[in-house]
Amino acid sequence: MIKVGIVGASGYTGGELLRFLHNHSNVEISSITSRQYAENPVYKVHPHLRDSDLIFQDIKPSEIDADLVFTATPHGASMNIVPEILKNGTKVIDLSGDYRYDDIKTYEKWYNLKHTNPLDAVYGLPELYRKEIKKASLVANPGCFPTGAILASIPLVQKKMVETVLIDSKTGISGAGINPKPITTFTNCSDNVIPYNITNHRHMSEIEQELNKPDKVKVCFTPQLVPVIRGILTTAHIFLKEDLKDDMSTEYLEEIYEEFFGDEPFVRILKDGEIPRLSAVRGSNFAHIGCFQIDKHGRVVIISTIDNLVKGASGQAIHNMNLMFGFKENESLESLGMHP
Amino acid sequence: MIKVGIVGASGYTGGELLRFLHNHSNVEISSITSRQYAENPVYKVHPHLRDSDLIFQDIKPSEIDADLVFTATPHGASMNIVPEILKNGTKVIDLSGDYRYDDIKTYEKWYNLKHTNPLDAVYGLPELYRKEIKKASLVANPGCFPTGAILASIPLVQKKMVETVLIDSKTGISGAGINPKPITTFTNCSDNVIPYNITNHRHMSEIEQELNKPDKVKVCFTPQLVPVIRGILTTAHIFLKEDLKDDMSTEYLEEIYEEFFGDEPFVRILKDGEIPRLSAVRGSNFAHIGCFQIDKHGRVVIISTIDNLVKGASGQAIHNMNLMFGFKENESLESLGMHP
Amino acid sequence: MIKVGIVGASGYTGGELLRFLHNHSNVEISSITSRQYAENPVYKVHPHLRDSDLIFQDIKPSEIDADLVFTATPHGASMNIVPEILKNGTKVIDLSGDYRYDDIKTYEKWYNLKHTNPLDAVYGLPELYRKEIKKASLVANPGCFPTGAILASIPLVQKKMVETVLIDSKTGISGAGINPKPITTFTNCSDNVIPYNITNHRHMSEIEQELNKPDKVKVCFTPQLVPVIRGILTTAHIFLKEDLKDDMSTEYLEEIYEEFFGDEPFVRILKDGEIPRLSAVRGSNFAHIGCFQIDKHGRVVIISTIDNLVKGASGQAIHNMNLMFGFKENESLESLGMHP
Amino acid sequence: MIKVGIVGASGYTGGELLRFLHNHSNVEISSITSRQYAENPVYKVHPHLRDSDLIFQDIKPSEIDADLVFTATPHGASMNIVPEILKNGTKVIDLSGDYRYDDIKTYEKWYNLKHTNPLDAVYGLPELYRKEIKKASLVANPGCFPTGAILASIPLVQKKMVETVLIDSKTGISGAGINPKPITTFTNCSDNVIPYNITNHRHMSEIEQELNKPDKVKVCFTPQLVPVIRGILTTAHIFLKEDLKDDMSTEYLEEIYEEFFGDEPFVRILKDGEIPRLSAVRGSNFAHIGCFQIDKHGRVVIISTIDNLVKGASGQAIHNMNLMFGFKENESLESLGMHP
Repeated sequence: MIKVGIVGASGYTGGELLRFLHNHSNVEISSITSRQYAENPVYKVHPHLRDSDLIFQDIKPSEIDADLVFTATPHGASMNIVPEILKNGTKVIDLSGDYRYDDIKTYEKWYNLKHTNPLDAVYGLPELYRKEIKKASLVANPGCFPTGAILASIPLVQKKMVETVLIDSKTGISGAGINPKPITTFTNCSDNVIPYNITNHRHMSEIEQELNKPDKVKVCFTPQLVPVIRGILTTAHIFLKEDLKDDMSTEYLEEIYEEFFGDEPFVRILKDGEIPRLSAVRGSNFAHIGCFQIDKHGRVVIISTIDNLVKGASGQAIHNMNLMFGFKENESLESLGMHP
Repeated sequence: MIKVGIVGASGYTGGELLRFLHNHSNVEISSITSRQYAENPVYKVHPHLRDSDLIFQDIKPSEIDADLVFTATPHGASMNIVPEILKNGTKVIDLSGDYRYDDIKTYEKWYNLKHTNPLDAVYGLPELYRKEIKKASLVANPGCFPTGAILASIPLVQKKMVETVLIDSKTGISGAGINPKPITTFTNCSDNVIPYNITNHRHMSEIEQELNKPDKVKVCFTPQLVPVIRGILTTAHIFLKEDLKDDMSTEYLEEIYEEFFGDEPFVRILKDGEIPRLSAVRGSNFAHIGCFQIDKHGRVVIISTIDNLVKGASGQAIHNMNLMFGFKENESLESLGMHP
Repeated sequence: MIKVGIVGASGYTGGELLRFLHNHSNVEISSITSRQYAENPVYKVHPHLRDSDLIFQDIKPSEIDADLVFTATPHGASMNIVPEILKNGTKVIDLSGDYRYDDIKTYEKWYNLKHTNPLDAVYGLPELYRKEIKKASLVANPGCFPTGAILASIPLVQKKMVETVLIDSKTGISGAGINPKPITTFTNCSDNVIPYNITNHRHMSEIEQELNKPDKVKVCFTPQLVPVIRGILTTAHIFLKEDLKDDMSTEYLEEIYEEFFGDEPFVRILKDGEIPRLSAVRGSNFAHIGCFQIDKHGRVVIISTIDNLVKGASGQAIHNMNLMFGFKENESLESLGMHP
Repeated sequence: MIKVGIVGASGYTGGELLRFLHNHSNVEISSITSRQYAENPVYKVHPHLRDSDLIFQDIKPSEIDADLVFTATPHGASMNIVPEILKNGTKVIDLSGDYRYDDIKTYEKWYNLKHTNPLDAVYGLPELYRKEIKKASLVANPGCFPTGAILASIPLVQKKMVETVLIDSKTGISGAGINPKPITTFTNCSDNVIPYNITNHRHMSEIEQELNKPDKVKVCFTPQLVPVIRGILTTAHIFLKEDLKDDMSTEYLEEIYEEFFGDEPFVRILKDGEIPRLSAVRGSNFAHIGCFQIDKHGRVVIISTIDNLVKGASGQAIHNMNLMFGFKENESLESLGMHP
């Protein structure tokens, strides 16, 4: 049994961490912090967590008594908190962008911020960095778009088959967070599709970092809000290298993905033309990957679906925790998607 | 050709006034005011009004050069503006609650405000007050819920057949206005039904005022937000007086409504069991009324549908304008509902 | 470990039974039947059940080797299947309306069918019939609307405080089943509210049966489709008996409900004005009950929310199974609601 | 005043033709045909057309007395009807795919049908073929996806600036027609994004035909259903030719589009980074085009929005009619989009 704290527990990712941890047999939650909701019971903010006795506290992150702290804080805030917590010998999984970059300059450019406390961290995508995560003190949990995009394209990039990856992502509105904004009102989002940061979204640099490790590929990325509560459907339009265009087959592509992901506990490869659905992973930590079609211009289309709040955030964070502490990988993450 | 001004043109009702007036052959818009968006072209706020050359201005309502001003201002604000405008000899249609009440005390109780400038006004429901509206200088445009509720129940109340009217209303989210609030985010409203002000919504007092004129009936009212952009579906559960319960028939009820509404240009009575739909009136100034079923306990169910921003606000306001200036009643309001 | 079969496993309630049973530690699924999908893997119909190895079979219900069979078959079909299964000594939980009625005549009138195989069954609402369910061979799982309606009103009816219960229910579209119908297309349901069977829905007779046991109350019921995938929000407008109108308080009402439901594992009473939300119970077996407001006409408003496919169908069925076989009541039903 | 008939008037495009023609001052509707709904008033199918006296008739297309007939029939059916109508000297606007192709072989390959009655027709995209449409007897109304895709990309293709156009389209569910299908139920579509015919949608060949006339460009096309009733948002990812990548600017791109579309009555170019919205064109015949961003890989992103049932079908058909008969181009098409 470990003690776990959550800093910034009043947002959607905080709520999801609590939803899963509620049934985790090795975890006791020692503190959840929120300045705004201090002294309030958790269900005032997260009405589904009615059975929890937890109360939001306004305490310093460094005062949390825990073996692990999740920092569900905005980028720019995490960098001021994380080092303090680590000093206590407490491990940290940070859900912001602050520790995801190998090169601080890339971070500073895309987040338009000075990084005041750079530290070594492991990029928390278990399918790529399981071994490193197990030994890490600080894990930088990946962004939601990068999770969907990297899983959809990395197997072909690793095989050095790819020239350009064009990621056209459709995300649910919960990705914009719990606080109301003009763009996220129901009247704006319902019956609309809203492209934003069309050629300059921060997550592009994160996708690029990971895809460019195995090979030099061009990465294009465009996100769009769709009238969906949860979920990211990633359409990866992958242009193969010139000499590979002619001999490609769906079967061969499926084989590459099956081999790459092997027995991954949370990745499922869909064959026989089955197309991943958001509802099939809704509320769960699974990623579905499918499509594997090729057109006459050598464009391969791979579709992935994840729940942006789970595999794209809190579920993946708990998966990382399970790895860091040697728990069963899917402990508390066993629930299936919710269709319909 | 008359000159028309709109105070508070940056909200949804302002946008709808502009959408209809754009094609009105007797109206020239002289000023639209908005402090927040002063100097901005109208399409910055209302992206569908792209062909309009209008620019928001930050001028005093009393400085508007117009034959008629629509005050699309919040309750409490209108009472400070309306008298100033009227002084110029300009007519006013006020879309707030400030001038809807016969008895100031009722207003002050339900709106929890001191009314600083009471004035005589006509309640702008053309189906009840057409004659008075034609001669009025100040028309108080009805609330959205009262419009749907009164139309659904007044024919039976006028015939003194009713003991209790229980109005269970389902409204689209645009009724909550253009400004973002915690409750109106997509993630809260989508896939949810949100009852609010369950026994104490202000509009109850407005419905009560109008239904109690012809007869003393009990009025119960409960509104609910549904994941719909526009529209109010009113379920009027009408309990008949004890002695009328046994001999009631659908045909007789239909007859009463048909007779009551006669040739009303914007009310349609649906027979043969047809149930009103929001989509059939979406974007239009029509009200559909139907159902006319009776259960064994003497409960008659009448369903009405309106577009809350049109018949429930701006369309009705333009209808009132057409009456006040002797234009064709449906001038600029001819467009049909949008189904699907 | 018991063996469980599901007849009619290709519908939404079949899918939900499988979703929960997947993680049930005392259950092994021996057969799932579907004529239409025989020989197909379960995920062809239920894409979220990708990890299941189950294959639909086209076998006779009586040939299923099981300790318990769930019959997720349409009304009219169950009555031909259930007796055959029971003959084998297998217990049955029937999700249709066929065995919910104490009086066959009521069934035959409302379902417009001759009942060919009446049998003694226990009405499977654990909050009312826990003791009987534990000993039953045949449990008739309640309808979705009755579950929400009875839980919202029975405490006051049992105290003989009620004259009339008017149930205005708003249901998600999944209640209409998996098969496409003209009314359930996205284009019809989205941005619409669709009242149906407004004074004559079958579930009215089921609600009436249960509410009329403790006291003679008038029951009015009107259901409406709202653009929601899952969930029923029940607005119970409860008119108190004449002499009780004046001294009623929210606190007293809350007390009655808290006492009535005591330690029920799946019912939560919301106080301090908190209004139940569909998202707080989405995907879970919980029922939330709240509001407890009273208006000047002696109308008490109680709001309940359930997931129609879980507490309103498959989750409640598994709860019943847990009771019938002495398992922990919430075994496999521990997951919380999913908000947002 | 001309006489107009509609064959297949019971679908969504039939409903939209009627909605606009209702207020057309030069048109009298002589016949609307539907086998399924013969003898029924139009509002039984199109509840918003309540004020229409039209009755569906089951008559042969060749018996329609009209100056113009809209054939809103499925592909494969139109080719058997259109020649019969033309024989009478009646003009035809066909909304199916049957007459859109210059090369019958392309049609036969993509529609997997033998074309039994090929005829010369004009491709009814007024922005490209205004002059030809004015003189045509037979106009083939463009597909919904091609309308959005061609408008978004043709200005750059005509300037021979483009190597590859990758069209990622997001369409509302009404594009799938009025008849219920498993995929178009609310429970499937809501909260989901559904890619389909991912590399082999028929409309690809239509886009290719038009874009390949001015220059040889590679066309990639992937459509996706989004939970929207009406509207297509087209994300055109346009890869420029190698030598043009470096000197491109947003201003230059805007200039090209402004020049290309000039005074087109239904196309609006959005500048200053404004992104087209579905709500801004909802229910109207406008196309909005904007974005004009460029990334470091020489990818230009152009976004267009249309209402698939209006500019993507019936509105464009009426625009074509107005051109063919010398009416004002926007007669009956003046209404603005509906936001929110």
